[in-house]
Amino acid sequence: MFKYVITEELDLRLLEPRHAEALFQLTDQSRDYLREWLPWVDFTKSINDSNNFIDSTLKQFSQNNGFQAGIWYKGHLAGVIGLHSINWSNHSTSIGYWLGEGDQGKGIMTQACAEVVDYCFEELNLQRVEIRAATENLKSAKIPEKLNFPREGCLKQSEKLYDKYVDHYVYGLTKEDYKSEDRRY
Amino acid sequence: MFKYVITEELDLRLLEPRHAEALFQLTDQSRDYLREWLPWVDFTKSINDSNNFIDSTLKQFSQNNGFQAGIWYKGHLAGVIGLHSINWSNHSTSIGYWLGEGDQGKGIMTQACAEVVDYCFEELNLQRVEIRAATENLKSAKIPEKLNFPREGCLKQSEKLYDKYVDHYVYGLTKEDYKSEDRRY
Amino acid sequence: MFKYVITEELDLRLLEPRHAEALFQLTDQSRDYLREWLPWVDFTKSINDSNNFIDSTLKQFSQNNGFQAGIWYKGHLAGVIGLHSINWSNHSTSIGYWLGEGDQGKGIMTQACAEVVDYCFEELNLQRVEIRAATENLKSAKIPEKLNFPREGCLKQSEKLYDKYVDHYVYGLTKEDYKSEDRRY
Amino acid sequence: MFKYVITEELDLRLLEPRHAEALFQLTDQSRDYLREWLPWVDFTKSINDSNNFIDSTLKQFSQNNGFQAGIWYKGHLAGVIGLHSINWSNHSTSIGYWLGEGDQGKGIMTQACAEVVDYCFEELNLQRVEIRAATENLKSAKIPEKLNFPREGCLKQSEKLYDKYVDHYVYGLTKEDYKSEDRRY
Amino acid sequence: MFKYVITEELDLRLLEPRHAEALFQLTDQSRDYLREWLPWVDFTKSINDSNNFIDSTLKQFSQNNGFQAGIWYKGHLAGVIGLHSINWSNHSTSIGYWLGEGDQGKGIMTQACAEVVDYCFEELNLQRVEIRAATENLKSAKIPEKLNFPREGCLKQSEKLYDKYVDHYVYGLTKEDYKSEDRRY
Amino acid sequence: MFKYVITEELDLRLLEPRHAEALFQLTDQSRDYLREWLPWVDFTKSINDSNNFIDSTLKQFSQNNGFQAGIWYKGHLAGVIGLHSINWSNHSTSIGYWLGEGDQGKGIMTQACAEVVDYCFEELNLQRVEIRAATENLKSAKIPEKLNFPREGCLKQSEKLYDKYVDHYVYGLTKEDYKSEDRRY
Repeated sequence: MFKYVITEELDLRLLEPRHAEALFQLTDQSRDYLREWLPWVDFTKSINDSNNFIDSTLKQFSQNNGFQAGIWYKGHLAGVIGLHSINWSNHSTSIGYWLGEGDQGKGIMTQACAEVVDYCFEELNLQRVEIRAATENLKSAKIPEKLNFPREGCLKQSEKLYDKYVDHYVYGLTKEDYKSEDRRY
Repeated sequence: MFKYVITEELDLRLLEPRHAEALFQLTDQSRDYLREWLPWVDFTKSINDSNNFIDSTLKQFSQNNGFQAGIWYKGHLAGVIGLHSINWSNHSTSIGYWLGEGDQGKGIMTQACAEVVDYCFEELNLQRVEIRAATENLKSAKIPEKLNFPREGCLKQSEKLYDKYVDHYVYGLTKEDYKSEDRRY
Repeated sequence: MFKYVITEELDLRLLEPRHAEALFQLTDQSRDYLREWLPWVDFTKSINDSNNFIDSTLKQFSQNNGFQAGIWYKGHLAGVIGLHSINWSNHSTSIGYWLGEGDQGKGIMTQACAEVVDYCFEELNLQRVEIRAATENLKSAKIPEKLNFPREGCLKQSEKLYDKYVDHYVYGLTKEDYKSEDRRY
Repeated sequence: MFKYVITEELDLRLLEPRHAEALFQLTDQSRDYLREWLPWVDFTKSINDSNNFIDSTLKQFSQNNGFQAGIWYKGHLAGVIGLHSINWSNHSTSIGYWLGEGDQGKGIMTQACAEVVDYCFEELNLQRVEIRAATENLKSAKIPEKLNFPREGCLKQSEKLYDKYVDHYVYGLTKEDYKSEDRRY
Repeated sequence: MFKYVITEELDLRLLEPRHAEALFQLTDQSRDYLREWLPWVDFTKSINDSNNFIDSTLKQFSQNNGFQAGIWYKGHLAGVIGLHSINWSNHSTSIGYWLGEGDQGKGIMTQACAEVVDYCFEELNLQRVEIRAATENLKSAKIPEKLNFPREGCLKQSEKLYDKYVDHYVYGLTKEDYKSEDRRY
Repeated sequence: MFKYVITEELDLRLLEPRHAEALFQLTDQSRDYLREWLPWVDFTKSINDSNNFIDSTLKQFSQNNGFQAGIWYKGHLAGVIGLHSINWSNHSTSIGYWLGEGDQGKGIMTQACAEVVDYCFEELNLQRVEIRAATENLKSAKIPEKLNFPREGCLKQSEKLYDKYVDHYVYGLTKEDYKSEDRRY
């Protein structure tokens, strides 16, 4: 029922229990593609796992600790975007996202992410928004770069991906950066 | 961020902690008007009470047990509409709503309620939706009547309103009624 | 240990964990008979299910939210009677009950229910007591009728019974009705 | 509603929230008398404290961990008797009790305690029941002695009573003792 | 990381999740030996059971309710010692312990227990420390005797050991006893 | 009882409830000094606040999510060191620490932190350990630099300190770095 309309074809919807099947199908169809950069893919073996994930995201939302939304494109679930958590002491958060293989290359995630950034600064009134991407995950890193997030550093071996550890670039945008005239997209 | 757009001027938004102040102000400004039919008005004495209410509604939502949404009209919070709970064993729910004094008489609630009814049958796939109204609360009773809910009975003394008990009309709409051709609004 | 003695042959006892086996046996022996009107029968497959039910009723009791009692007749467990929950805001409750096939037709439930009604008004000091019965469950509907509960309405499709929905009569008794001279049984 | 009838004048009733006022009054009226041997008297300052105690006893009961019952004598609350907890691994429990000043010397507690002992062995099927009494609390120690509990030892400084520590006699009765012919009361 | 060093060869360490495997191995290797006096041995069937036990002891510690520590001797886990719980109302506790078969007869437990007794009186500032031992478990009873705990009584059938009940000696040491000159070990 | 002995004069002890008073005194005496870089100082107004903090750290420890230890120097509490949490999916953690004004400049924290780093890699077997310090907090930044943690980036405005936001340097050490020959301190 509740959505964030971006364009006529694209909107974000809070994940709810009745989306579990669509979420599992999306994961299952892009399994090989997604597992390259997402550590939870191998642990998502049934609709029940997707359902547990959705339950945990609703609990997160109810605790004022961020949200996870389905990205709906032309009427089907295309991916997920959300906030990992909200640090209310420091007024900061971190955005995460992924898209199924079939909807890559259409500019969907850049648009979706730009809206979430607006939401963080305009509605949640946060001070800092962070995005992290594995250094070799070029598609993912392109999103903060297109949105003019400065790259602030490279954290070694900060994520375990099945049998190896990968380094992460950290991108951070402050409210001042966000409001400045130079930021255009 | 997440809304249900009804018209350009009217939308529903899940209540979130940052709405607590607006919700308390709305309650406080219509206090005398609202307390005639709402038992919780006298117990809402500060923003903190509104905040606790919002927390409880988010918990409700996260447990797949219904939602409470702010009714936003021309950019301000005008009232609240939601589901008291969802009985998943019987696939039924009950709708509740109220509007501040200043926005009465504009057809807002009939529109909002019609959308919530659609949501219950179309998205939640429920079998029965109920609305109750105190027998002397004519404004409230008019909503289910306009939406063609059959009146099914009158429950004596079923709600305590401060110093007295009031009787309730029960209106119930089944999925078959909802889908039938005769229902037009 | 704790009972409510009705006659020498009939008493009510709070369900406790050590009653789980007797409760399961009673359910299991009347399975076909009970499932006609009780939606939980098919989900009660082992003593463990009865035990979980008893745990939940004790939690209900400990939260001042009603009770579930075994109906003991001539030394054996014959059925169950209790309150679905207590609405302390509105001082109202709803009574539910069932009896195994072997003890039908002996007037047990009318007596048991009359005592529970007394308890609701005299000890819990409630304002309204409700009983619901499926419209075609004549045996069940007879109980509130014998106890002079006015019939207040008929709620369409309000309970799911395995593969169909059934309508419910609502019977409601107020404290004033209860205290009035006309009520005799 | 639920009682354990001992004589026409004497019964035990599970403590429920609506007994809080009577329980507080009983405590308050015998305050000086009770505080000699009961460590919680000084911390029971309002009905709210009695209410919290009752809540905790209902939680205890709902967890199959024993009960606390009001002792009702000639229609008024005279004291409390219950099980401190039930050790289901070892099938043992310990009985505690107290009586207001006004009902001392009438044999009430010996009768009440005998029934609780029966309940422990007959209904709960325990193996061992323990009673402890401060060595100088002669009235309390007389109860297990009248009920033929063997005295098994004296535990030094095992209870703190406000500004001092007192020694406890331990009395223990096993199921075999209980069933033996020699035990008569 | 956190230990209580007794000698160069002997120390106590709070049990942590990473000790689960060592704890299970120790139990498994001495299974026949340990089950003579320990009721939980037969229920410890996998590392998972040891892990659950460790979780429960950490919860106990975090609630200021005592600890369970591994006894490490010459670099391997030899046994466990801890407090069953702490009664903060009465400032008392009870010590429990066991040692694998291979490390019996080396004086380990007497040393470990003496340190725990010191901790109870010196750091926790308790008033009374209790040790119980089955009357026929001579090895266990020797510990409090060596540490000059007075024997205070014998509780009949107070522990269930698989198919029988055993009697317990109770030994109790008060702070005064502990501080007195007569106590030497 | 449980400590991590570093030198004869210096050890770490898990914070326990009985340390609340010493912790509050330490905070209170260095209040002006500490609040320059620690956001919680102004919210620590009584022993009760220190007690709540200690409770939360014990809960953290019991959930296998890191620890907080008092740094004891020459018999008094000098500061605190611990892990903010443990990310078991990625096998990483982050170290935090502070020292009262009176014990600055004695090399205490470098020693304490080196031991915690050892613990993270040797006992917890983590892959990455992070330390963050406000860019202008030179004393704090010196610790990871002395311990040869590479500086990986600078996160803008990542901490709120009362009325302003400060930037953080991130230092990260991987297990490989830690094991390499070049790292000497």
